[in-house]
Amino acid sequence: MSWFSRLFGRSQPVVNAPTLAGKRDFSALPRADFAEFTPDPTTFLAQAAYIQLEIFENLARAVSAAPSVAEKELLTKVAANSLRKQRKLSKLLRHSGVNPAEAMAPFAPAIDAFRVQTAGSDWWELLVSSYVTAGILDEFFLGLAAGLPNSEAVVAILSGPGADEVLAGIVLAGIQDDPELASRLALWARRLVGDTLLVARSALAGETSFENVEPVFTELISGHSRRLDALGLTA
Amino acid sequence: MSWFSRLFGRSQPVVNAPTLAGKRDFSALPRADFAEFTPDPTTFLAQAAYIQLEIFENLARAVSAAPSVAEKELLTKVAANSLRKQRKLSKLLRHSGVNPAEAMAPFAPAIDAFRVQTAGSDWWELLVSSYVTAGILDEFFLGLAAGLPNSEAVVAILSGPGADEVLAGIVLAGIQDDPELASRLALWARRLVGDTLLVARSALAGETSFENVEPVFTELISGHSRRLDALGLTA
Repeated sequence: MSWFSRLFGRSQPVVNAPTLAGKRDFSALPRADFAEFTPDPTTFLAQAAYIQLEIFENLARAVSAAPSVAEKELLTKVAANSLRKQRKLSKLLRHSGVNPAEAMAPFAPAIDAFRVQTAGSDWWELLVSSYVTAGILDEFFLGLAAGLPNSEAVVAILSGPGADEVLAGIVLAGIQDDPELASRLALWARRLVGDTLLVARSALAGETSFENVEPVFTELISGHSRRLDALGLTA
Repeated sequence: MSWFSRLFGRSQPVVNAPTLAGKRDFSALPRADFAEFTPDPTTFLAQAAYIQLEIFENLARAVSAAPSVAEKELLTKVAANSLRKQRKLSKLLRHSGVNPAEAMAPFAPAIDAFRVQTAGSDWWELLVSSYVTAGILDEFFLGLAAGLPNSEAVVAILSGPGADEVLAGIVLAGIQDDPELASRLALWARRLVGDTLLVARSALAGETSFENVEPVFTELISGHSRRLDALGLTA
Protein backbone atom coordinates (compact mmCIF):
# COMPACT_ATOMS: atom_id res chain seq x y z
CA MET A 1 0.00 0.00 0.00
CA SER A 2 1.35 3.44 -0.86
CA TRP A 3 2.02 5.99 1.88
CA PHE A 4 -0.71 8.09 0.33
CA SER A 5 -3.50 5.55 0.59
CA ARG A 6 -2.39 4.65 4.13
CA LEU A 7 -2.72 8.30 5.12
CA PHE A 8 -5.85 9.26 3.29
CA GLY A 9 -7.63 5.98 2.63
CA ARG A 10 -7.75 6.53 -1.12
CA SER A 11 -5.43 6.59 -4.08
CA GLN A 12 -3.32 9.61 -4.93
CA PRO A 13 -5.01 12.15 -7.22
CA VAL A 14 -3.22 13.46 -10.29
CA VAL A 15 -1.77 16.84 -9.35
CA ASN A 16 -1.10 19.28 -12.12
CA ALA A 17 2.13 20.59 -10.68
CA PRO A 18 4.96 21.95 -12.79
CA THR A 19 7.08 19.09 -14.06
CA LEU A 20 10.69 18.85 -15.05
CA ALA A 21 11.68 16.13 -17.51
CA GLY A 22 8.51 14.26 -16.59
CA LYS A 23 9.40 14.20 -12.89
CA ARG A 24 7.49 16.28 -10.41
CA ASP A 25 9.62 19.24 -9.39
CA PHE A 26 8.96 19.81 -5.73
CA SER A 27 11.19 22.86 -5.49
CA ALA A 28 8.84 24.74 -7.82
CA LEU A 29 5.91 24.34 -5.39
CA PRO A 30 5.28 27.04 -2.81
CA ARG A 31 6.69 26.14 0.61
CA ALA A 32 3.81 24.74 2.68
CA ASP A 33 2.62 26.68 5.68
CA PHE A 34 2.79 24.13 8.48
CA ALA A 35 1.90 26.77 11.07
CA GLU A 36 -1.84 26.56 10.51
CA PHE A 37 -1.72 22.97 11.88
CA THR A 38 0.31 23.77 15.01
CA PRO A 39 -1.33 22.38 18.16
CA ASP A 40 -1.25 24.22 21.52
CA PRO A 41 2.28 24.62 22.96
CA THR A 42 2.00 21.87 25.59
CA THR A 43 0.71 19.30 23.10
CA PHE A 44 3.38 20.35 20.62
CA LEU A 45 6.26 20.20 23.13
CA ALA A 46 5.13 16.89 24.62
CA GLN A 47 4.90 15.21 21.22
CA ALA A 48 8.15 16.71 19.97
CA ALA A 49 9.92 15.66 23.20
CA TYR A 50 8.63 12.10 23.02
CA ILE A 51 9.59 11.86 19.34
CA GLN A 52 13.13 13.00 20.24
CA LEU A 53 13.18 10.35 22.94
CA GLU A 54 12.17 7.76 20.34
CA ILE A 55 14.90 8.97 17.98
CA PHE A 56 17.40 8.88 20.85
CA GLU A 57 16.42 5.32 21.81
CA ASN A 58 16.99 4.15 18.24
CA LEU A 59 20.38 5.88 18.10
CA ALA A 60 21.36 4.40 21.47
CA ARG A 61 20.51 0.92 20.17
CA ALA A 62 22.61 1.68 17.11
CA VAL A 63 25.50 2.62 19.44
CA SER A 64 25.22 -0.73 21.25
CA ALA A 65 24.96 -2.72 18.02
CA ALA A 66 27.81 -0.92 16.24
CA PRO A 67 30.36 -3.35 14.82
CA SER A 68 33.39 -1.21 15.70
CA VAL A 69 34.44 1.40 18.23
CA ALA A 70 34.87 3.98 15.46
CA GLU A 71 31.18 3.74 14.54
CA LYS A 72 30.21 3.57 18.20
CA GLU A 73 32.01 6.86 18.84
CA LEU A 74 30.37 8.57 15.84
CA LEU A 75 26.90 7.37 16.80
CA THR A 76 27.43 8.34 20.45
CA LYS A 77 28.04 11.89 19.31
CA VAL A 78 24.76 12.10 17.38
CA ALA A 79 22.80 10.24 20.07
CA ALA A 80 23.97 13.05 22.36
CA ASN A 81 22.57 15.63 19.90
CA SER A 82 19.17 14.00 19.98
CA LEU A 83 19.21 13.57 23.75
CA ARG A 84 20.15 17.25 24.16
CA LYS A 85 17.09 18.27 22.13
CA GLN A 86 14.88 16.00 24.23
CA ARG A 87 16.20 17.40 27.51
CA LYS A 88 15.72 20.98 26.34
CA LEU A 89 12.12 20.34 25.20
CA SER A 90 11.41 18.67 28.55
CA LYS A 91 12.87 21.71 30.30
CA LEU A 92 10.57 24.06 28.34
CA LEU A 93 7.60 21.99 29.50
CA ARG A 94 8.78 22.15 33.12
CA HIS A 95 9.37 25.91 32.86
CA SER A 96 5.76 26.38 31.76
CA GLY A 97 4.61 24.50 34.85
CA VAL A 98 3.91 21.21 33.10
CA ASN A 99 5.16 17.79 34.27
CA PRO A 100 6.97 16.43 31.18
CA ALA A 101 6.24 12.77 31.93
CA GLU A 102 2.52 13.44 32.39
CA ALA A 103 2.37 15.54 29.24
CA MET A 104 4.22 12.93 27.15
CA ALA A 105 2.34 9.89 28.47
CA PRO A 106 -0.73 10.13 26.16
CA PHE A 107 1.54 10.01 23.10
CA ALA A 108 3.71 7.14 24.32
CA PRO A 109 1.68 4.10 23.16
CA ALA A 110 1.49 5.16 19.50
CA ILE A 111 5.11 6.34 19.34
CA ASP A 112 6.40 3.24 21.17
CA ALA A 113 4.53 1.07 18.65
CA PHE A 114 6.06 3.13 15.84
CA ARG A 115 9.55 2.54 17.27
CA VAL A 116 8.95 -1.22 17.36
CA GLN A 117 7.54 -1.26 13.80
CA THR A 118 10.51 0.68 12.48
CA ALA A 119 13.24 -1.11 14.45
CA GLY A 120 14.44 -3.10 11.43
CA SER A 121 15.98 -6.55 11.35
CA ASP A 122 19.63 -5.53 11.64
CA TRP A 123 21.99 -2.64 12.32
CA TRP A 124 21.79 -1.30 8.76
CA GLU A 125 18.01 -1.13 8.79
CA LEU A 126 18.14 0.51 12.21
CA LEU A 127 20.51 3.18 10.85
CA VAL A 128 18.23 3.79 7.85
CA SER A 129 15.22 3.99 10.19
CA SER A 130 16.95 6.61 12.30
CA TYR A 131 17.93 8.53 9.19
CA VAL A 132 14.53 8.39 7.46
CA THR A 133 12.20 8.82 10.42
CA ALA A 134 14.27 11.47 12.23
CA GLY A 135 14.76 13.28 8.90
CA ILE A 136 11.04 13.52 8.20
CA LEU A 137 9.94 14.17 11.79
CA ASP A 138 12.61 16.78 12.54
CA GLU A 139 11.56 18.71 9.43
CA PHE A 140 7.90 18.28 10.33
CA PHE A 141 8.19 19.54 13.92
CA LEU A 142 10.44 22.38 12.82
CA GLY A 143 7.71 23.41 10.35
CA LEU A 144 5.00 23.18 13.01
CA ALA A 145 7.13 25.14 15.51
CA ALA A 146 6.70 28.25 13.37
CA GLY A 147 3.11 28.45 14.61
CA LEU A 148 4.01 28.51 18.31
CA PRO A 149 3.87 31.68 20.42
CA ASN A 150 7.45 30.99 21.66
CA SER A 151 8.59 29.72 18.28
CA GLU A 152 12.11 31.19 18.48
CA ALA A 153 13.20 29.11 21.49
CA VAL A 154 11.73 25.92 20.04
CA VAL A 155 13.11 26.49 16.54
CA ALA A 156 16.56 27.07 18.07
CA ILE A 157 16.36 23.70 19.87
CA LEU A 158 15.02 21.70 16.93
CA SER A 159 17.39 23.16 14.38
CA GLY A 160 20.44 22.16 16.43
CA PRO A 161 22.80 19.53 15.04
CA GLY A 162 21.18 16.16 14.33
CA ALA A 163 22.30 12.76 13.12
CA ASP A 164 21.83 13.10 9.34
CA GLU A 165 25.42 13.52 8.22
CA VAL A 166 26.89 10.82 10.42
CA LEU A 167 24.17 8.30 9.53
CA ALA A 168 24.48 9.06 5.81
CA GLY A 169 28.26 8.68 6.02
CA ILE A 170 28.07 5.26 7.66
CA VAL A 171 25.32 3.95 5.36
CA LEU A 172 27.07 5.26 2.23
CA ALA A 173 30.29 3.50 3.27
CA GLY A 174 28.31 0.31 3.94
CA ILE A 175 26.72 0.38 0.48
CA GLN A 176 30.12 0.95 -1.12
CA ASP A 177 31.47 -2.12 0.69
CA ASP A 178 28.43 -4.22 -0.18
CA PRO A 179 26.43 -2.89 -3.16
CA GLU A 180 23.66 -5.47 -2.58
CA LEU A 181 22.77 -3.57 0.57
CA ALA A 182 21.42 -0.72 -1.58
CA SER A 183 18.27 -2.44 -2.87
CA ARG A 184 17.39 -3.92 0.52
CA LEU A 185 17.79 -0.55 2.25
CA ALA A 186 15.87 1.32 -0.48
CA LEU A 187 12.96 -1.09 0.00
CA TRP A 188 13.16 -0.68 3.77
CA ALA A 189 13.24 3.13 3.48
CA ARG A 190 10.11 3.01 1.32
CA ARG A 191 8.29 0.95 3.96
CA LEU A 192 9.19 3.49 6.66
CA VAL A 193 7.60 6.50 4.96
CA GLY A 194 3.97 5.52 5.52
CA ASP A 195 4.42 4.82 9.24
CA THR A 196 6.37 8.03 9.71
CA LEU A 197 3.80 10.19 7.93
CA LEU A 198 1.04 8.60 10.04
CA VAL A 199 2.90 9.75 13.17
CA ALA A 200 3.18 13.22 11.65
CA ARG A 201 -0.47 13.30 10.70
CA SER A 202 -1.55 12.39 14.24
CA ALA A 203 0.33 15.46 15.50
CA LEU A 204 -1.59 17.92 13.31
CA ALA A 205 -4.28 20.13 14.79
CA GLY A 206 -7.32 21.58 13.01
CA GLU A 207 -8.97 20.48 9.80
CA THR A 208 -6.77 17.72 8.41
CA SER A 209 -8.65 16.76 5.25
CA PHE A 210 -6.53 15.73 2.28
CA GLU A 211 -7.05 19.07 0.53
CA ASN A 212 -5.82 20.95 3.58
CA VAL A 213 -2.76 18.94 4.53
CA GLU A 214 -1.57 17.78 1.12
CA PRO A 215 1.01 20.61 0.77
CA VAL A 216 2.56 19.64 4.13
CA PHE A 217 2.96 16.02 3.11
CA THR A 218 4.21 16.94 -0.34
CA GLU A 219 6.94 18.98 1.29
CA LEU A 220 7.86 16.20 3.74
CA ILE A 221 8.07 13.69 0.88
CA SER A 222 10.22 16.10 -1.05
CA GLY A 223 12.67 16.45 1.86
CA HIS A 224 12.69 12.67 2.25
CA SER A 225 13.54 12.22 -1.44
CA ARG A 226 16.46 14.63 -1.11
CA ARG A 227 17.77 12.72 1.91
CA LEU A 228 17.54 9.39 0.08
CA ASP A 229 19.30 10.93 -2.93
CA ALA A 230 22.17 11.69 -0.56
CA LEU A 231 22.48 7.94 0.03
CA GLY A 232 22.30 7.21 -3.70
CA LEU A 233 18.93 5.52 -3.12
CA THR A 234 15.62 6.19 -4.89
CA ALA A 235 12.68 7.13 -2.68
CA MET B 1 33.52 -17.52 44.63
CA SER B 2 34.17 -14.36 46.62
CA TRP B 3 35.20 -11.16 44.86
CA PHE B 4 38.47 -11.43 46.71
CA SER B 5 39.47 -14.85 45.42
CA ARG B 6 38.37 -13.88 41.91
CA LEU B 7 40.69 -10.89 42.07
CA PHE B 8 43.68 -12.36 43.80
CA GLY B 9 43.34 -16.09 43.26
CA ARG B 10 43.41 -16.87 46.99
CA SER B 11 41.21 -16.45 50.02
CA GLN B 12 41.01 -13.18 51.92
CA PRO B 13 43.58 -12.77 54.72
CA VAL B 14 42.47 -11.74 58.19
CA VAL B 15 43.16 -8.02 58.49
CA ASN B 16 43.62 -6.57 61.94
CA ALA B 17 41.73 -3.38 61.27
CA PRO B 18 39.85 -1.41 63.90
CA THR B 19 36.44 -2.93 64.45
CA LEU B 20 33.16 -1.52 65.63
CA ALA B 21 30.67 -3.89 67.23
CA GLY B 22 32.43 -6.80 65.54
CA LYS B 23 32.01 -5.28 62.07
CA ARG B 24 34.95 -3.94 60.15
CA ASP B 25 34.88 -0.15 60.28
CA PHE B 26 36.06 1.06 56.89
CA SER B 27 35.84 4.74 57.81
CA ALA B 28 38.63 4.29 60.36
CA LEU B 29 41.09 3.17 57.67
CA PRO B 30 43.30 5.76 56.00
CA ARG B 31 41.92 6.84 52.62
CA ALA B 32 43.77 4.85 49.96
CA ASP B 33 46.07 6.66 47.59
CA PHE B 34 44.80 5.60 44.19
CA ALA B 35 47.19 7.99 42.44
CA GLU B 36 50.18 5.66 42.58
CA PHE B 37 48.31 3.32 40.20
CA THR B 38 47.28 5.98 37.66
CA PRO B 39 48.21 4.98 34.10
CA ASP B 40 49.43 7.49 31.49
CA PRO B 41 46.80 10.12 30.56
CA THR B 42 45.79 8.60 27.20
CA THR B 43 45.29 5.15 28.68
CA PHE B 44 43.38 6.63 31.59
CA LEU B 45 41.10 8.79 29.43
CA ALA B 46 40.43 6.04 26.90
CA GLN B 47 39.42 3.56 29.60
CA ALA B 48 37.37 6.09 31.54
CA ALA B 49 35.61 7.17 28.33
CA TYR B 50 34.79 3.62 27.30
CA ILE B 51 33.51 2.82 30.80
CA GLN B 52 31.23 5.87 30.62
CA LEU B 53 30.02 4.62 27.24
CA GLU B 54 29.26 1.25 28.83
CA ILE B 55 27.39 2.95 31.70
CA PHE B 56 25.50 5.07 29.18
CA GLU B 57 24.53 2.03 27.09
CA ASN B 58 23.09 0.33 30.19
CA LEU B 59 21.14 3.45 31.15
CA ALA B 60 19.83 3.83 27.59
CA ARG B 61 18.59 0.24 27.69
CA ALA B 62 16.94 1.02 31.02
CA VAL B 63 15.21 4.00 29.35
CA SER B 64 13.83 1.76 26.59
CA ALA B 65 12.71 -0.94 29.02
CA ALA B 66 11.11 1.47 31.53
CA PRO B 67 7.53 0.46 32.37
CA SER B 68 6.19 4.02 32.45
CA VAL B 69 6.93 7.41 30.91
CA ALA B 70 7.69 8.85 34.38
CA GLU B 71 10.59 6.41 34.85
CA LYS B 72 11.65 6.87 31.23
CA GLU B 73 11.91 10.62 31.78
CA LEU B 74 13.94 10.19 35.01
CA LEU B 75 16.32 7.70 33.40
CA THR B 76 16.73 9.85 30.30
CA LYS B 77 18.00 12.63 32.52
CA VAL B 78 20.70 10.48 34.10
CA ALA B 79 21.60 8.79 30.81
CA ALA B 80 22.31 12.32 29.59
CA ASN B 81 24.64 12.88 32.58
CA SER B 82 26.66 9.81 31.69
CA LEU B 83 26.73 10.63 27.99
CA ARG B 84 27.93 14.17 28.81
CA LYS B 85 30.87 12.72 30.77
CA GLN B 86 31.69 10.39 27.89
CA ARG B 87 31.62 13.19 25.33
CA LYS B 88 33.84 15.41 27.48
CA LEU B 89 36.41 12.66 28.03
CA SER B 90 36.42 11.97 24.29
CA LYS B 91 36.97 15.67 23.68
CA LEU B 92 39.97 15.72 26.05
CA LEU B 93 41.47 12.86 24.05
CA ARG B 94 40.89 14.71 20.77
CA HIS B 95 42.37 17.92 22.21
CA SER B 96 45.54 16.05 23.07
CA GLY B 97 45.81 14.88 19.45
CA VAL B 98 44.50 11.38 20.08
CA ASN B 99 41.74 9.69 18.02
CA PRO B 100 39.22 8.65 20.71
CA ALA B 101 37.94 5.58 18.82
CA GLU B 102 41.49 4.28 18.26
CA ALA B 103 42.44 4.91 21.87
CA MET B 104 39.31 3.19 23.23
CA ALA B 105 39.39 0.20 20.88
CA PRO B 106 41.89 -1.95 22.86
CA PHE B 107 39.65 -1.78 25.94
CA ALA B 108 36.40 -2.52 24.10
CA PRO B 109 36.39 -6.36 24.10
CA ALA B 110 36.78 -6.73 27.88
CA ILE B 111 34.36 -3.92 28.72
CA ASP B 112 31.78 -5.12 26.15
CA ALA B 113 31.97 -8.59 27.71
CA PHE B 114 31.54 -7.01 31.15
CA ARG B 115 28.41 -5.21 29.93
CA VAL B 116 26.92 -8.45 28.64
CA GLN B 117 27.77 -10.31 31.89
CA THR B 118 26.18 -7.61 34.00
CA ALA B 119 23.10 -6.99 31.84
CA GLY B 120 20.77 -8.82 34.21
CA SER B 121 17.64 -10.77 33.40
CA ASP B 122 15.12 -7.93 33.76
CA TRP B 123 14.72 -4.19 34.19
CA TRP B 124 15.31 -4.31 37.96
CA GLU B 125 18.58 -6.18 37.63
CA LEU B 126 19.65 -3.76 34.89
CA LEU B 127 18.95 -0.81 37.21
CA VAL B 128 20.92 -2.44 40.04
CA SER B 129 23.77 -3.19 37.60
CA SER B 130 23.90 0.43 36.56
CA TYR B 131 23.81 1.54 40.19
CA VAL B 132 26.45 -0.89 41.47
CA THR B 133 28.91 -0.91 38.57
CA ALA B 134 28.74 2.83 37.87
CA GLY B 135 28.99 3.52 41.60
CA ILE B 136 32.19 1.52 42.00
CA LEU B 137 33.78 2.54 38.70
CA ASP B 138 33.00 6.26 39.02
CA GLU B 139 34.62 6.27 42.46
CA PHE B 140 37.56 4.27 41.13
CA PHE B 141 38.31 6.50 38.14
CA LEU B 142 37.82 9.61 40.25
CA GLY B 143 40.44 8.23 42.65
CA LEU B 144 42.85 7.40 39.82
CA ALA B 145 42.31 10.84 38.24
CA ALA B 146 44.14 12.43 41.16
CA GLY B 147 47.38 11.05 39.72
CA LEU B 148 47.00 12.72 36.32
CA PRO B 149 48.98 15.80 35.26
CA ASN B 150 45.71 17.52 34.20
CA SER B 151 43.78 16.10 37.12
CA GLU B 152 41.60 19.18 37.70
CA ALA B 153 39.84 19.04 34.32
CA VAL B 154 39.26 15.29 34.59
CA VAL B 155 38.09 15.42 38.20
CA ALA B 156 35.62 18.18 37.24
CA ILE B 157 34.16 15.95 34.49
CA LEU B 158 33.98 12.76 36.55
CA SER B 159 32.52 14.41 39.65
CA GLY B 160 29.60 15.87 37.65
CA PRO B 161 26.09 14.62 38.39
CA GLY B 162 25.60 10.88 37.92
CA ALA B 163 22.74 8.40 38.11
CA ASP B 164 22.97 7.29 41.78
CA GLU B 165 20.07 9.19 43.29
CA VAL B 166 17.59 8.50 40.51
CA LEU B 167 18.48 4.80 40.35
CA ALA B 168 18.29 4.43 44.13
CA GLY B 169 14.91 6.19 44.18
CA ILE B 170 13.40 3.88 41.55
CA VAL B 171 14.82 0.69 43.10
CA LEU B 172 13.75 1.69 46.62
CA ALA B 173 10.21 2.33 45.41
CA GLY B 174 10.22 -1.02 43.60
CA ILE B 175 11.31 -2.86 46.76
CA GLN B 176 8.59 -1.10 48.76
CA ASP B 177 5.99 -2.27 46.25
CA ASP B 178 7.35 -5.80 46.16
CA PRO B 179 9.48 -6.73 49.22
CA GLU B 180 10.50 -10.05 47.63
CA LEU B 181 12.53 -8.07 45.12
CA ALA B 182 15.01 -7.19 47.91
CA SER B 183 16.61 -10.61 48.31
CA ARG B 184 16.86 -11.21 44.57
CA LEU B 185 18.48 -7.81 43.99
CA ALA B 186 20.84 -8.20 46.98
CA LEU B 187 22.06 -11.50 45.52
CA TRP B 188 22.45 -9.92 42.09
CA ALA B 189 24.39 -6.96 43.53
CA ARG B 190 26.76 -9.37 45.25
CA ARG B 191 27.43 -11.15 41.94
CA LEU B 192 28.27 -7.86 40.24
CA VAL B 193 31.05 -6.85 42.62
CA GLY B 194 33.64 -9.37 41.46
CA ASP B 195 33.21 -8.57 37.76
CA THR B 196 33.33 -4.84 38.47
CA LEU B 197 36.48 -5.05 40.57
CA LEU B 198 38.14 -7.13 37.84
CA VAL B 199 37.48 -4.28 35.40
CA ALA B 200 38.94 -1.84 37.91
CA ARG B 201 41.98 -4.03 38.49
CA SER B 202 42.71 -4.22 34.77
CA ALA B 203 42.88 -0.42 34.67
CA LEU B 204 45.61 -0.16 37.32
CA ALA B 205 49.18 0.60 36.34
CA GLY B 206 52.33 -0.42 38.18
CA GLU B 207 52.88 -3.15 40.73
CA THR B 208 49.42 -4.59 41.42
CA SER B 209 50.22 -7.31 43.94
CA PHE B 210 47.64 -7.91 46.64
CA GLU B 211 49.68 -6.08 49.27
CA ASN B 212 49.91 -3.00 47.06
CA VAL B 213 46.36 -2.67 45.83
CA GLU B 214 44.43 -4.00 48.83
CA PRO B 215 43.73 -0.50 50.25
CA VAL B 216 42.22 0.60 46.93
CA PHE B 217 39.86 -2.36 46.83
CA THR B 218 38.99 -2.02 50.50
CA GLU B 219 37.93 1.53 49.82
CA LEU B 220 35.89 0.59 46.75
CA ILE B 221 34.13 -2.16 48.71
CA SER B 222 33.43 0.30 51.49
CA GLY B 223 31.82 2.76 49.06
CA HIS B 224 29.83 -0.08 47.53
CA SER B 225 28.53 -1.12 50.97
CA ARG B 226 27.38 2.43 51.67
CA ARG B 227 25.54 2.56 48.35
CA LEU B 228 23.79 -0.76 49.03
CA ASP B 229 22.86 0.48 52.53
CA ALA B 230 21.06 3.34 50.78
CA LEU B 231 18.86 0.71 49.10
CA GLY B 232 18.30 -1.10 52.40
CA LEU B 233 20.30 -4.05 51.02
CA THR B 234 23.27 -5.83 52.61
CA ALA B 235 26.44 -5.96 50.55
